[in-house]
Amino acid sequence: MKKRTYAIIGTGAIGGYYGSLLQRAGFETHFLLRSDYAYVKEHGLRIDDINGDFTLPEVNAYDATTTMPKCDVIIVALKTTANHRLQDMLPPIVGPDTIVIALQNGLGPEQTIATCVQPRAILGGLSFVCSNKIGPGHIHHLDYGLITLGAYAPDGAAGITPALSAVSDDLTAAGIPIRLDENLMQARWKKLMWNIPYNGLCALLNVTTDILMKDPEMRLLLADLMREVQAGAAACGVEISDDFLQKMIIDTDRMKPYLPSMLLDRRHNRPMELESIYKNPITTAGIPMPRIEMLYRQLQIINPS
Amino acid sequence: MKKRTYAIIGTGAIGGYYGSLLQRAGFETHFLLRSDYAYVKEHGLRIDDINGDFTLPEVNAYDATTTMPKCDVIIVALKTTANHRLQDMLPPIVGPDTIVIALQNGLGPEQTIATCVQPRAILGGLSFVCSNKIGPGHIHHLDYGLITLGAYAPDGAAGITPALSAVSDDLTAAGIPIRLDENLMQARWKKLMWNIPYNGLCALLNVTTDILMKDPEMRLLLADLMREVQAGAAACGVEISDDFLQKMIIDTDRMKPYLPSMLLDRRHNRPMELESIYKNPITTAGIPMPRIEMLYRQLQIINPS
Repeated sequence: MKKRTYAIIGTGAIGGYYGSLLQRAGFETHFLLRSDYAYVKEHGLRIDDINGDFTLPEVNAYDATTTMPKCDVIIVALKTTANHRLQDMLPPIVGPDTIVIALQNGLGPEQTIATCVQPRAILGGLSFVCSNKIGPGHIHHLDYGLITLGAYAPDGAAGITPALSAVSDDLTAAGIPIRLDENLMQARWKKLMWNIPYNGLCALLNVTTDILMKDPEMRLLLADLMREVQAGAAACGVEISDDFLQKMIIDTDRMKPYLPSMLLDRRHNRPMELESIYKNPITTAGIPMPRIEMLYRQLQIINPS
Repeated sequence: MKKRTYAIIGTGAIGGYYGSLLQRAGFETHFLLRSDYAYVKEHGLRIDDINGDFTLPEVNAYDATTTMPKCDVIIVALKTTANHRLQDMLPPIVGPDTIVIALQNGLGPEQTIATCVQPRAILGGLSFVCSNKIGPGHIHHLDYGLITLGAYAPDGAAGITPALSAVSDDLTAAGIPIRLDENLMQARWKKLMWNIPYNGLCALLNVTTDILMKDPEMRLLLADLMREVQAGAAACGVEISDDFLQKMIIDTDRMKPYLPSMLLDRRHNRPMELESIYKNPITTAGIPMPRIEMLYRQLQIINPS
């Protein structure tokens, strides 16, 4: 059987890393780039990988989807702040047999994709990976790598679909650790349980996680924010246990001082993913979330635009 | 009749300005200083005043209250972050006939004074003045100057007491605009209606008032915070009308871009008045104020110590 072909939309720290693993494993892979396009077209990609460095001297590089072939699977790995571009980017490469994966943060990327194209299936992925782009076409993978993968259905949990299994097999064959989740919405809300309090407060206060954790009053606020996330999830029919909330706090206590992505965004003067991590959960839950709304409004003031 | 004598506890931008007006008007005035003590003892005070510059080449300067005479009226003009020092500073200069005025921000300074000494009367003052210390013993008064003055009573509004009238006459004679308020607690809560949202958010986000006012979502948060102040005041038996809330917003819209005191504190790496402006109102109100508590917890993280 012919191997499935892959398109990587957004060849940054996440898309570039996973796409390179796919190409190395023998999957025909096509990379969409922007600023690094000319460099990568000539020099390929270079991965400094904690699991073993490697280079791909020749890759299929593109600077627009209009010149790309239609692939079997499209991995959308853009930062969600660029998702307004999907309505122009996706139609040229999505046919009725295409599988599209939103490998993105927060809530709502699958819905955005569903408004742009009608593919065979839409999946969602949540990566737990420590990876940075350190130069043109040059990615440093420092740690972790798990992708939690689930199938999107407009009206609830979709279970383990054939499309989900097929993609999971490919990614696993490429050496990527995969966890399948029958309930993508629940997986997204669980990740928000950490991202909403920690990403926002670390960015707003310009501090690493340990500074928050050692302040007794701040711990109360973190727990209050988590309870609002829990209530928001419940309003969407997703149960998250109190134990999970406690686990988030205990896990963060055990972490080394950590700079969440939004804090890095702030320090590097890049736009923060406020819509997917704050606005969409607030809107989707449709219940009062006073502290989360307050944090969202504060972050909008300091958001580099 | 002999004129009343005055002691100024804290000869900064506020105490130094009003104390200088009292001395110029012929009231015997005694100034407590700290870092500027030696300079002022030798050179006196200099006031660049929008109403007319003046100098006081000779002033009664002290570096401790133990060497000060007992005065008829003591004006406490310390930043509230120094109020823990009052229990040592006040007893040497307060007798049973002394009037003590807390010319300070936020809630609680009269209660603090009442736990330190038993004077004839305790008054509270709220200054609306634009004044800066720009060098040793050198104060620049840029605009305004009104003091709202009220009498403290542990159990509610005290009305216009003889002590209040007496001090008001003196300050008026010194050219200081005075507004008497029969309900000091209400006056303090009304000032908090502005200070709690604007001081805290401007300091936290490191922006001037106009940046907040031009953001539609931030205006919603400002109004939410004001409604929590209004509810806190109501829990203390103080009614503040919705009209007053609207007036605060309209007034701030009309102001030039303004740097509240806490924003200046943050930018100059000085401690912010979090206890008097946040902690004491939260504790005194004794009702849930989720947004104010959140702001307080956030400010504690960035507070220069």
